[in-house]
Amino acid sequence: MWIISKIYPYSLSQRLGAICDVLYTMWIRNSIGHLGDHSYIHYPCSLPAGRRQISIGDHTVIQSHTILACWEKYREQTFTPSITIGDHCDIGEYNHLTACNQIKIGNGLLTGRYVYIGDNAHGGLSWEEAAIPPEDRPLCSKGEIVIGNNVWIGDKATILGGVTIGDNVIVGANSVVIHDVPSHCVVAGIPAKVVKSLS
Amino acid sequence: MWIISKIYPYSLSQRLGAICDVLYTMWIRNSIGHLGDHSYIHYPCSLPAGRRQISIGDHTVIQSHTILACWEKYREQTFTPSITIGDHCDIGEYNHLTACNQIKIGNGLLTGRYVYIGDNAHGGLSWEEAAIPPEDRPLCSKGEIVIGNNVWIGDKATILGGVTIGDNVIVGANSVVIHDVPSHCVVAGIPAKVVKSLS
Amino acid sequence: MWIISKIYPYSLSQRLGAICDVLYTMWIRNSIGHLGDHSYIHYPCSLPAGRRQISIGDHTVIQSHTILACWEKYREQTFTPSITIGDHCDIGEYNHLTACNQIKIGNGLLTGRYVYIGDNAHGGLSWEEAAIPPEDRPLCSKGEIVIGNNVWIGDKATILGGVTIGDNVIVGANSVVIHDVPSHCVVAGIPAKVVKSLS
Repeated sequence: MWIISKIYPYSLSQRLGAICDVLYTMWIRNSIGHLGDHSYIHYPCSLPAGRRQISIGDHTVIQSHTILACWEKYREQTFTPSITIGDHCDIGEYNHLTACNQIKIGNGLLTGRYVYIGDNAHGGLSWEEAAIPPEDRPLCSKGEIVIGNNVWIGDKATILGGVTIGDNVIVGANSVVIHDVPSHCVVAGIPAKVVKSLS
Repeated sequence: MWIISKIYPYSLSQRLGAICDVLYTMWIRNSIGHLGDHSYIHYPCSLPAGRRQISIGDHTVIQSHTILACWEKYREQTFTPSITIGDHCDIGEYNHLTACNQIKIGNGLLTGRYVYIGDNAHGGLSWEEAAIPPEDRPLCSKGEIVIGNNVWIGDKATILGGVTIGDNVIVGANSVVIHDVPSHCVVAGIPAKVVKSLS
Repeated sequence: MWIISKIYPYSLSQRLGAICDVLYTMWIRNSIGHLGDHSYIHYPCSLPAGRRQISIGDHTVIQSHTILACWEKYREQTFTPSITIGDHCDIGEYNHLTACNQIKIGNGLLTGRYVYIGDNAHGGLSWEEAAIPPEDRPLCSKGEIVIGNNVWIGDKATILGGVTIGDNVIVGANSVVIHDVPSHCVVAGIPAKVVKSLS
């Protein structure tokens, strides 16, 4: 293995991985509604549903093992579910973006690993719905998710439906955002609350 | 790559992935104590120990990258550790179920990604045990984990030993459940507390 | 598939995986600053930057899908960023250790899955920095991270910059550690606080 590591060192495997990501993006871009210039989807990602309703801006990266899904078949609403991601975003590894309503992300979003952004829930909170398996409950949504510009979402944070996050916001690691977040602040905790205003 | 994406589009890769999961289930089912009808284990999962003590009901799916482990070698108790999963469950991707005692899951469980359900801990809280490396402390358990029917566990939640969760419960994302949860409610936070009773 | 599972059972695939990890370690060890005796890096891990500044002791395991990174290019400080891991540590799967300052880990650390230990942040909290995309903000660090001996960090915990954790500490699952932690205690929550002193 010593000789192999001289012929094919770790640094070379990294460069081949980068080429693989470029080829993967070229292969997958026809499946997506819109993928802007200089934007990349790293190998492998998962696009289980509603690929045509996904729109990604320019200079944006979707890191590997991320799921982007628009669940059309579940919608009862009259409009089409969609995910719109702006320019210069970096969606981290192992993220999960799932819409049965709308997810609208501005420019310059950075997310950590294992972030969940989802506008849908398995059923409401009635006794009747709770008594059937969650998978059999109809998907519902408290409302769309809107994320402003220059937002930074920490590792393992969770953003739920009906939430609007302003511009220049930092969401702390492991937080769960269930209420609106104003611009220019840091939020953290379960549920996430403003812990600092940027001055 | 444009031509390849016409001959071998993303949607076809998805269908081949589904076939791969069926073959993987057929291959792995002999290793498991019991795997019910119409139940699937998606490629790849990890079954590092105690595979014969794992029992999975009908119409249940174990999503990819999940670990199921019964640690027999660590037990000091007289009974055999086991994991029992009911019917119509959907165990999400990247979950980790680990037992040195018993994990008993009812019907209709749905879990998000990165959920941990484990009844064991590395040692107790004595000064003597704390002064040795955690890996060298004997595995111990506060008690079995029992999860009722129609429970929905959100992304990145953690369920620890000695906990009983009732029927029709929703466990919020990123929560840590260390106390019993009654039926018909929503729990959230670290530690998880009842935030809403279903009416 | 039934016949294949007899010829090539799951238990054999596990043993081949272990051999793969040994070969992977032999292949990758030349890229790392120091890798001690009887220490292994499981396939696959990611070492995107600063591999020569990573030092790993004896009898230590880095589980698969973990990222170790020293970001030299971002440094404004006069010293070199580094990650030092002691002996008999077990860094779990899907962890992320990232330094633009120093991460110093003692002996006997055990971490769960999805743990983040990172001393760096994208920019400070000024209005000017918040108004540019997080990725374009200069990396900065509140200070080094020091972790003592025999520490156990639970699943999905997050350890941020400027934090010193004492000896024989247990960090609860899903916690976010932003303040120093004394020796001989259990911390939990967001932010993590002492919930029990070991006696």
